[in-house]
Amino acid sequence: MSRGVGARTRLLGIVGHPIAQVKAPGLINPWLAAHEIDAVLLPLHVAPDAFDRFMVGIKGLQNLDGLILTVPHKRAGLRHVDGVTERARLAGAINVMRRERSGEWSGDALDGEGFVRSLVGEGFDPRGRRALVVGTGGAGAAIAISLVEAGIGALALCDTDGARVASLAAALGGSGRGITVQPVADPRGVDLVVNATPLGMAPGDPLPLDPELLSAGTRVADIVTEPAITPLLCRALDRGCVPHPGILLTEYQRDLLVDFLLP
Amino acid sequence: MSRGVGARTRLLGIVGHPIAQVKAPGLINPWLAAHEIDAVLLPLHVAPDAFDRFMVGIKGLQNLDGLILTVPHKRAGLRHVDGVTERARLAGAINVMRRERSGEWSGDALDGEGFVRSLVGEGFDPRGRRALVVGTGGAGAAIAISLVEAGIGALALCDTDGARVASLAAALGGSGRGITVQPVADPRGVDLVVNATPLGMAPGDPLPLDPELLSAGTRVADIVTEPAITPLLCRALDRGCVPHPGILLTEYQRDLLVDFLLP
Repeated sequence: MSRGVGARTRLLGIVGHPIAQVKAPGLINPWLAAHEIDAVLLPLHVAPDAFDRFMVGIKGLQNLDGLILTVPHKRAGLRHVDGVTERARLAGAINVMRRERSGEWSGDALDGEGFVRSLVGEGFDPRGRRALVVGTGGAGAAIAISLVEAGIGALALCDTDGARVASLAAALGGSGRGITVQPVADPRGVDLVVNATPLGMAPGDPLPLDPELLSAGTRVADIVTEPAITPLLCRALDRGCVPHPGILLTEYQRDLLVDFLLP
Repeated sequence: MSRGVGARTRLLGIVGHPIAQVKAPGLINPWLAAHEIDAVLLPLHVAPDAFDRFMVGIKGLQNLDGLILTVPHKRAGLRHVDGVTERARLAGAINVMRRERSGEWSGDALDGEGFVRSLVGEGFDPRGRRALVVGTGGAGAAIAISLVEAGIGALALCDTDGARVASLAAALGGSGRGITVQPVADPRGVDLVVNATPLGMAPGDPLPLDPELLSAGTRVADIVTEPAITPLLCRALDRGCVPHPGILLTEYQRDLLVDFLLP
């Protein structure tokens, strides 16, 4: 199973809660092995109440080179880096951090770029299209920012946290795109719907939007990776939409993650 | 290299400084793989000044089941467990700790038992013999305690830390063995010499004792594992002694470590 991990192996990790569903170890460890890089990406299961002291402690691990942060740690991660990219600052969250040669930690938010790569790779060009992003936490904000950078024509944002969504809309307001805020998610008339909330991970979660409002042909994306086909994607399929499962975001982000973590 | 580490893999680690020389990952990971146990033993490089906050942080890692502690963390490790065995309490050090089902961490000192196993396994029965242990830190104290338990006839202890060696000698004084303290290590007239100091790890280290005093036939053991043949063992070979390299302690301890870490 792990025959190759030795005393000189460099460590990378993905920090999340829960952890058993994360895809990065299964995607990146075979890549590292195939490229004969003596490093391993570890699943690191840390609950929110333990996160800050975990991060302080883990920085003392000299053979740790970088971390991926996933739900629910992307916003909290921002407290634990010395510098971030502009898009991460705008998103108010990071999903990767690495130790620079100086010893400082730098962070970035790659979810948005990974998501746009997955759209383009699957044949959906976002330029000039209309999109709705539900959820403006770490991943949702990064996705909204990257959609704007990629030339989206109009972008509606929706979040139960009114202050958070208003702040993101204000930050993107100068982009010249039509940025609007919806108090309740309404996917009518858009080309792309993104569920960027964790709704769908747990059995019995409510849907992030009313599926009766989905139109045939709309691309419906979900950032949830387990289950692979979420209840939202099931209902979207029933309505004749094009499903865009979360695993695509992970897969198309792999090269970005590897480039960031092994510079 | 590490193809098998996935999201559900359980984590074990060895904490040390330096780390590149530790043998446990290379010994235990192939064993885990051969037994199809989805766990990995990681090298965890932590300097002394980062150790306490690292330990506080790492306990927040829910998929971490246990740790091996090596130089220089064995004594400091004692602060981070909720309970220890009597032999660990006597040694004032632990070299293993695990999370019990209750959530508490328990510690033990396995170096001594591992060392006695290596002696017996290599044909040296310690019963009734005379031994000298140089260095009464975590490993040295554990070895001294286990030699007494194994029926050693006479045991001399030597350490540059006078209070530490006196305390260990006092603790072992009730055993009925001849326990003595030497201000300077003198291996004349003993059957077994143990270097339980880190001297020999770094190029240019002084020898832990004067090799001119070694007699042919004496078994000379070293807990240092890198280099495999330390300068002391070289000089012992020159003098016609029987070398007992540190790797034997690691190898004979493997089953003890596995039994403790995967109960």
